[in-house]
Amino acid sequence: MGRVTERRRVLRIRDGAVDHRADTLVAEEPLEIRLNGKPLAITMRTPGDDFALAAGFLVSEGVLGGADELANIVYCAGATVDGSNTYNVVDVRLAPGVPVPDITLERNVYTTSSCGLCGKASLDAVRTTARWPIADPSPLRLEPGLLSALPDRLRAAQRVFDRTGGLHAAALFTGEGELLDVREDVGRHNAVDKLVGRALQQDLLPLAGKILMVSGRASFELAQKAVMAGIPVLAAVSAPSSLAVDLADESGLTLVGFLRGTSMNVYAGEERIALPAPAAGRV
Amino acid sequence: MGRVTERRRVLRIRDGAVDHRADTLVAEEPLEIRLNGKPLAITMRTPGDDFALAAGFLVSEGVLGGADELANIVYCAGATVDGSNTYNVVDVRLAPGVPVPDITLERNVYTTSSCGLCGKASLDAVRTTARWPIADPSPLRLEPGLLSALPDRLRAAQRVFDRTGGLHAAALFTGEGELLDVREDVGRHNAVDKLVGRALQQDLLPLAGKILMVSGRASFELAQKAVMAGIPVLAAVSAPSSLAVDLADESGLTLVGFLRGTSMNVYAGEERIALPAPAAGRV
Repeated sequence: MGRVTERRRVLRIRDGAVDHRADTLVAEEPLEIRLNGKPLAITMRTPGDDFALAAGFLVSEGVLGGADELANIVYCAGATVDGSNTYNVVDVRLAPGVPVPDITLERNVYTTSSCGLCGKASLDAVRTTARWPIADPSPLRLEPGLLSALPDRLRAAQRVFDRTGGLHAAALFTGEGELLDVREDVGRHNAVDKLVGRALQQDLLPLAGKILMVSGRASFELAQKAVMAGIPVLAAVSAPSSLAVDLADESGLTLVGFLRGTSMNVYAGEERIALPAPAAGRV
Repeated sequence: MGRVTERRRVLRIRDGAVDHRADTLVAEEPLEIRLNGKPLAITMRTPGDDFALAAGFLVSEGVLGGADELANIVYCAGATVDGSNTYNVVDVRLAPGVPVPDITLERNVYTTSSCGLCGKASLDAVRTTARWPIADPSPLRLEPGLLSALPDRLRAAQRVFDRTGGLHAAALFTGEGELLDVREDVGRHNAVDKLVGRALQQDLLPLAGKILMVSGRASFELAQKAVMAGIPVLAAVSAPSSLAVDLADESGLTLVGFLRGTSMNVYAGEERIALPAPAAGRV
């Protein structure tokens, strides 16, 4: 079974000095996700939390909405010529009575985006398949100072990044800024799927009133995953894309980008931000 | 037709001061790539260089190897209900006689990795489909100082990053460190595909003796794209993954990571690095 990190011999050059040493790398291996025995998707991922990754992916795809819809998840043997188990193929079995989606040729993909044909179509698809509206049971009014504290908490909770420098992280916080869970992966979308999948396994969906924090950029794909899990706030250390902002606007998702130090940009859903008094003459 | 950047109104919070302003975001839109009229892949990309992106993607997939194998690339109308052109669907038509690959259900994907079922299988697949061995016509012996100069040249050539902070970049250099081309995209794999696709359009494949420099991490996918284009050196600002190193080892690709200042790590193919004299007692 794969490990989260692997050691490799590396030639290190530092200011003209040269030596060989062992270096710790983030592990990357493919995972095939099957649904009721039928191949559905392949993703490159960091091994670990594979069942959560598969479950979270199916939440993002609108297949799973609660722990009661999941019968079980197993590693498949026989993926190699000699029939041994590579631990790189998982099969997700839905509970009896849960409809198996019509997986057409066009949807039998794990794109980098999980999106449809065009921006408009994919935005429509999200609205169609989302099981819950984005919601905060008691309306969120987040102080900027609370948001500013999240990146340090995410970083403190990252276990592998400091050793490899090669991982994306995603964390789930309460509306009071309390860390609930953090996941790391070589793929940013996998880190979020693992987070959402673990929430599903604990029957915590939808994640109303929660904050999703990601270590990198906010792409359309990540905004879509937040919406599908019912998360009302997505905060990112780096930039969002135009389509992520469009989706946030249309879905009622609060989207915060460039969250660094005491600065941030709010791209959508600013009603959930408790604003300080405007600076004189600047608004 | 989509643009490389888009403007959005944003709420900016800086040290307690609040204002609204227009912000420049990197544009992200889906692109469907068709091959001889048949849907092949969907990727989220930054609009622009779409034909190069499609061509480079097909080089990475082993379908295209030279400009003479390409008949033409066109935007498809009719992707919307009203038949208008979204400029988000391109059709690549192969030259007469060029074999159309058997696009099975399993391969009809644009995964985040373009890989097969498992690590071993995908490494085998790369060896099978690569049209050229990695080659340097006159063997490369790269001085560390030459490599150290590349990140600044890449950054200087990036046009959109400074405005949006949201783009990955990929650049092609000669073995002497001369910049040949640079492409940017919201997806790192797209930036490389655009670079390789433009090289194909100019009939420059294989890219023997060249250096591919990427602004982020070196995943398996990017190492695979380098191998498929015949590029002998991949240099990255950040960390490689374990599978990228494995592929580099098996393919004869020189893989340099953490290329920052005068430091770098050489993970594979160190025979192409002109080493300074070892520091006494350190080797």
